[in-house]
Amino acid sequence: MVENFDEWFHDILEQADITDSRYPIKGMAVWRPYGFQIRKHSMNIIKNLLDKDHDEVLFPMLVPETELAKEGIHVKGFEDEVYWVTKGGQRELNEQLALRPTSETAIYPMYSLWIRTHIDLPIKMYQIVNTFRYETKHTRPLIRVREITTFKEAHTAHATKEESDEQVQDFIAMYKEFFDDLGLAYLISKRPEWDKFPGADYTMAFDVIMPNGKTLQIGTIHNLGQTFAKTFDITFEDKDGEHKLVYQTCAGVSDRVIASVIGMHGDDKGLRLPPKVSPNQVTIIPILFKKGKEEVLAKCAEIKEQLEAKGLRVNLDDRDIRPGKKFNDWELKGTPIKLELGPRDLENNITIAMRRDEEEKIELALDDDLADNVIKLLNKSSENLSNQSWTFQDEHVKFTDNIDEIAQLVEAGNVVSFRWCGDEAIGKEIEEKTGYDILGIQEEISEGKCIASDNDAQYMALIAKTY
Amino acid sequence: MVENFDEWFHDILEQADITDSRYPIKGMAVWRPYGFQIRKHSMNIIKNLLDKDHDEVLFPMLVPETELAKEGIHVKGFEDEVYWVTKGGQRELNEQLALRPTSETAIYPMYSLWIRTHIDLPIKMYQIVNTFRYETKHTRPLIRVREITTFKEAHTAHATKEESDEQVQDFIAMYKEFFDDLGLAYLISKRPEWDKFPGADYTMAFDVIMPNGKTLQIGTIHNLGQTFAKTFDITFEDKDGEHKLVYQTCAGVSDRVIASVIGMHGDDKGLRLPPKVSPNQVTIIPILFKKGKEEVLAKCAEIKEQLEAKGLRVNLDDRDIRPGKKFNDWELKGTPIKLELGPRDLENNITIAMRRDEEEKIELALDDDLADNVIKLLNKSSENLSNQSWTFQDEHVKFTDNIDEIAQLVEAGNVVSFRWCGDEAIGKEIEEKTGYDILGIQEEISEGKCIASDNDAQYMALIAKTY
Repeated sequence: MVENFDEWFHDILEQADITDSRYPIKGMAVWRPYGFQIRKHSMNIIKNLLDKDHDEVLFPMLVPETELAKEGIHVKGFEDEVYWVTKGGQRELNEQLALRPTSETAIYPMYSLWIRTHIDLPIKMYQIVNTFRYETKHTRPLIRVREITTFKEAHTAHATKEESDEQVQDFIAMYKEFFDDLGLAYLISKRPEWDKFPGADYTMAFDVIMPNGKTLQIGTIHNLGQTFAKTFDITFEDKDGEHKLVYQTCAGVSDRVIASVIGMHGDDKGLRLPPKVSPNQVTIIPILFKKGKEEVLAKCAEIKEQLEAKGLRVNLDDRDIRPGKKFNDWELKGTPIKLELGPRDLENNITIAMRRDEEEKIELALDDDLADNVIKLLNKSSENLSNQSWTFQDEHVKFTDNIDEIAQLVEAGNVVSFRWCGDEAIGKEIEEKTGYDILGIQEEISEGKCIASDNDAQYMALIAKTY
Repeated sequence: MVENFDEWFHDILEQADITDSRYPIKGMAVWRPYGFQIRKHSMNIIKNLLDKDHDEVLFPMLVPETELAKEGIHVKGFEDEVYWVTKGGQRELNEQLALRPTSETAIYPMYSLWIRTHIDLPIKMYQIVNTFRYETKHTRPLIRVREITTFKEAHTAHATKEESDEQVQDFIAMYKEFFDDLGLAYLISKRPEWDKFPGADYTMAFDVIMPNGKTLQIGTIHNLGQTFAKTFDITFEDKDGEHKLVYQTCAGVSDRVIASVIGMHGDDKGLRLPPKVSPNQVTIIPILFKKGKEEVLAKCAEIKEQLEAKGLRVNLDDRDIRPGKKFNDWELKGTPIKLELGPRDLENNITIAMRRDEEEKIELALDDDLADNVIKLLNKSSENLSNQSWTFQDEHVKFTDNIDEIAQLVEAGNVVSFRWCGDEAIGKEIEEKTGYDILGIQEEISEGKCIASDNDAQYMALIAKTY
């Protein structure tokens, strides 16, 4: 595993052309071409999942102060972090406008107009947009930023509480599928009361454990109950002609998903990208000598075509530089499979395949089965990355019954699970005493004592050093 | 053609679920699901064209005032229209930040870092982002807005002026292909000096004539020369080790493309969408009676599958409402082809196809050729929409040699072409006298006199009432 993770993470973003942080505003970075492709393929996965039963929409980026302020609990959670537009041209605006920190207060006034009767329900929409937080803490590209360039937010409204609870479960299932495709291991927990989304009834969260043991929240799902429905007057006429408030949920993932892909899979040589989101799934590297150069290049082009015909993203690196440099470049950039082809390989009618996730070199015959064999290797690579992530996570979640052991376990790079009575005061005491954050509760339990009181334990909970 | 176009346009956006202008900030609207799909399919066409030789990237939305102000001519063109962020949380920011009105000043400081030698050139990038203009004029959804939700901007840098001129031609060819796919007719002209992009050497523009005779600028291509290269110090080392400034171009299209698709093709019954961007290319409408209901629905589902297997976007409208309502809905929403299937059709093994662009009903056999026959109809529909647009444009560009005739021709819904000497003072005199805008010059000519002076004519130019 990477020694100094934060430094490694910072460097790899620049070296592998993911983002460029030299943009002249702190906490705002540029997505470079290679990084943009990873982002695009990642977003395509979640879009495809959402498109099954959600409508994609796009709301304005600015929110009037009056709307943002309507939901009191909500605005309190964001007011210190909101960027305000106060001027248009040389003129002061009559009302200041917020750069959306999230879009509840932009979307729900429209829901109030769109939802009339039970026939309009459920309503399920999503958008992928940029959002803004005036971070005063130390910023980190993709992890803690001032412009979240990629915020996928879904917003649903339902006729009953039951349906909204089911929707939360649906989102959990959807996010599992999404993160599974990225080969990420994750912890799912219900956030404690004091850490739920401002305005929500309850918040479910996905966290990953980064190589340095810190957890990163990469997905959240909120059951909003009727809080916003009351504030924004979102009602419907049910079958009996009665007017009722809707029940709502929302769910978000952000740039942090890409941070996790980079952080969890990377190694000392650079990125190791999951095939589903790698800009190039295969990079072909010709080994060229004066003799037979044309033949080798022609064969490489033929292989590229053969693989692309099966839907693979293939890069033929025919740059006029030494092959060794090419190997290093694509190792750094994490292409899942490199295919090497020189004159002797051509004679033997083979190519040497190298998986990025393993050191192994594999000879593949240059025949009609080549694409299928490459796809098999890609699948193995996906599985292996996923297995390694889950193994890492399993090894880094440690149970203790002794509150004094928590610090030592966390400092050694672990997330700690413990028994908790669920009492808020006790929970905060645990956080204060250890200096770490309770991520949330993983499951209800019926035996054992609370780690910090004489109460019976109600929950298995997680505590960690968080980003 | 539509009688009162502006009113029609406003209404159709709401009725056909394109956008919703009730959002509580004037000039900022919500993309509703149906509209979003049209936008998505439209953007996919231009993305595919750009992806051939451009890299997609994403730059921050905020631009520091110092950067925006660096290019004097440029900032002068935008300063009255810039929204400014001045506060983060409760705190005044040290430097105010602009919501990008366009991204030259965000992108070019990075080009200065990225471009080192001739090997780095040409650089060709694009992004699709939201941009902002504090419009003080009357706003209109998709046409004159304060948040341009969809701004595709491409930015290139080259070693020579010749290459940058070629790039302009490449963009013209690309935009032609894009607008052709949308069935739009267009006028291409070189904007007069006083109407070029702030900072550009010259600006090429695409305009469409809307049904009311007003022109709408839907695409622009700017040769920036070395203006920004000087300002942002974008240099490269050429083969001889000499340091030189790059030559740049940029090119943009926006939400207005969607406005044109809606405006140019629509009729009194609603939208007529080009198949390439219609959310549903085919809508199947079952005609249901108690008897044979199941069989008809099963056959409809089968047809849907059959068409989807050929890559078509198909909607089976099985809502529990009368077929007449469905016909009206999809007429309004502009689905290119409706397929009607009732019990008698099923007996006769046929379906009735209706093209939205023509009144005609066509019997299609329910056999293996159905999908191919539907595709033929879609192609005819595309062609017909395009032909109608070009015919309309041809009929509405009128030449005159008499400056006093211009007003009458323009008020009758035409764009007027005229001979011009190219002199700026004369040009502005023509604009002032007529009250209309010179779009630009279409071609150089070598005979005739200028419409407003004794000078020999140099150009065939266009004048119009513009949006």
